[in-house]
Amino acid sequence: MNAYSESRPEFDFIDWIKKQVTLRPEVKLGIGDDAAILSHQPNREWVTAIDVITEGVHFTSETPPELIGRKALAINLSDIAAMAADPVAVFLGIVLPKSCGRAYAEQLYAGIFEMANEYELSIAGGDTNSWSGPLVLNVTVMGTVEQGKAILRSGANAGDWIFVTGPLGGSLASGRHLTFEPKLKEAKILAQHFHITSMLDLSDGLASDARHIASQSGVGMIVDTQSLPIHTDVNPDLPEAERVQHAMSDGEDFELLLTVSPEEGERLLSEGIQLGVAVTKIGECTEEVGMKLQSGDALIDWPRGGWEHEV
Amino acid sequence: MNAYSESRPEFDFIDWIKKQVTLRPEVKLGIGDDAAILSHQPNREWVTAIDVITEGVHFTSETPPELIGRKALAINLSDIAAMAADPVAVFLGIVLPKSCGRAYAEQLYAGIFEMANEYELSIAGGDTNSWSGPLVLNVTVMGTVEQGKAILRSGANAGDWIFVTGPLGGSLASGRHLTFEPKLKEAKILAQHFHITSMLDLSDGLASDARHIASQSGVGMIVDTQSLPIHTDVNPDLPEAERVQHAMSDGEDFELLLTVSPEEGERLLSEGIQLGVAVTKIGECTEEVGMKLQSGDALIDWPRGGWEHEV
Repeated sequence: MNAYSESRPEFDFIDWIKKQVTLRPEVKLGIGDDAAILSHQPNREWVTAIDVITEGVHFTSETPPELIGRKALAINLSDIAAMAADPVAVFLGIVLPKSCGRAYAEQLYAGIFEMANEYELSIAGGDTNSWSGPLVLNVTVMGTVEQGKAILRSGANAGDWIFVTGPLGGSLASGRHLTFEPKLKEAKILAQHFHITSMLDLSDGLASDARHIASQSGVGMIVDTQSLPIHTDVNPDLPEAERVQHAMSDGEDFELLLTVSPEEGERLLSEGIQLGVAVTKIGECTEEVGMKLQSGDALIDWPRGGWEHEV
Repeated sequence: MNAYSESRPEFDFIDWIKKQVTLRPEVKLGIGDDAAILSHQPNREWVTAIDVITEGVHFTSETPPELIGRKALAINLSDIAAMAADPVAVFLGIVLPKSCGRAYAEQLYAGIFEMANEYELSIAGGDTNSWSGPLVLNVTVMGTVEQGKAILRSGANAGDWIFVTGPLGGSLASGRHLTFEPKLKEAKILAQHFHITSMLDLSDGLASDARHIASQSGVGMIVDTQSLPIHTDVNPDLPEAERVQHAMSDGEDFELLLTVSPEEGERLLSEGIQLGVAVTKIGECTEEVGMKLQSGDALIDWPRGGWEHEV
């Protein structure tokens, strides 16, 4: 039989969380009821993203808890950025190992709060449990976007140019996956000044994620390996082919991948930097379905089985 | 280095999920992009609830997977019911043990789909992971409610009568926590025909949950143990005091606890059943803050440490 106390640690902790939270006007009712209430904003619609991260997969038991909390929120904000939307409210489903203790839990949440405050969004609800298993964080982020203005994966056209917002590769090995800034600002600038035909955030790696745009838009892609921006986190002493593989397949870059018409592409290349977005053209969409890699004069199939280690 | 394949089981599985999903008109964009898009409905606002269930806490490794999936969704729908809202969209954050296999995962999802279809809501997004740990399900449900009509925990007044929608106790031991129907229909009827001052769904048990209404409304409560409806799942051979304890503290009843003025209470008792809602009056809200139990002529404090086992 359960024993209940008003001073049950769970409720103390919820009170502690509530004290850290600033409510945005859209959040009419936050933590503390059966559900949160989100008010409608005229001419806007809601976008909702969800991501789960688990110990041993997306972080280790040695990762500082602040950075785990930070990452759980940042990867969702990256999804919201990919829709060119504004994040509003966060819902946290957290399963804590019983052994971790209150101080650890507070550090975990501190990482979430810091990022939530930085991007001015409200923790609007959650469910915190403990168990004998490892740490799990499930974050749901709700945001808003002007009606009809979300950028989807399905709008790329044959002939469109393909861009990325930053260098790729080495994120997991370097720890960059724990400290990256989601490209919310960049996405808003891009959506405001250019006609973006499709966009997503690179989480699994270009080799995997680019296929989503291709298949949902019904186009093929040619990516020029020589124009791929490779992150300095990738060992410069490796052979070039291996460095390209890292850039395409390591994953967790959380840069944006986007397509625009050639005319918009020219404009993006000439005006982007002044507006605050540095992009690199890495390829083009093709009428012919299929993924190809261009390396110098050679044009090879993106292997059917995916980007496979060639060494 | 990751190997990627268009035939990666993860994507096969997402395709399989997409085929089971019916999209409601509010869900403008569902599974398959960085985030879902939810359209605004005139004069309504969004409510969002989140719940996590974990192996070993809310179910065991022997629980049939269909019932685990069902429960994960049902407990969220119970939260939506407690706001007197209509569920619209579900977001699933699921961490599968690597050992469980595709058939198990499909059964788990089948339980979710069945309940989603029964209540006409759409699976609008999710993130499915696998790991070496036990099963975790995180469900976020979004619903809508007429603007300003959500029923909160904070509106009870001194003098209000306290009701429950069904018998309490024995839910976990009997397995009822896996098969209960969330009180969505009942909540809508109640909200439509009566002025409900506060409401919540009983998840932790009356002894614990009633305090949320009391503290958020700034009232006390006297609950009459003799009028408590005790579920047939509670052993009838136990001494009465013990049966009451089960009813108050076992938890996972997922009945609604609500308050109304005495006038509305009279009307609820006389008209409720014809409208399709059977409720039981279990007590009253008091001006004096504090939780009390009435047992015959005796009025005792709800122990400060909570409802504690007395035997």
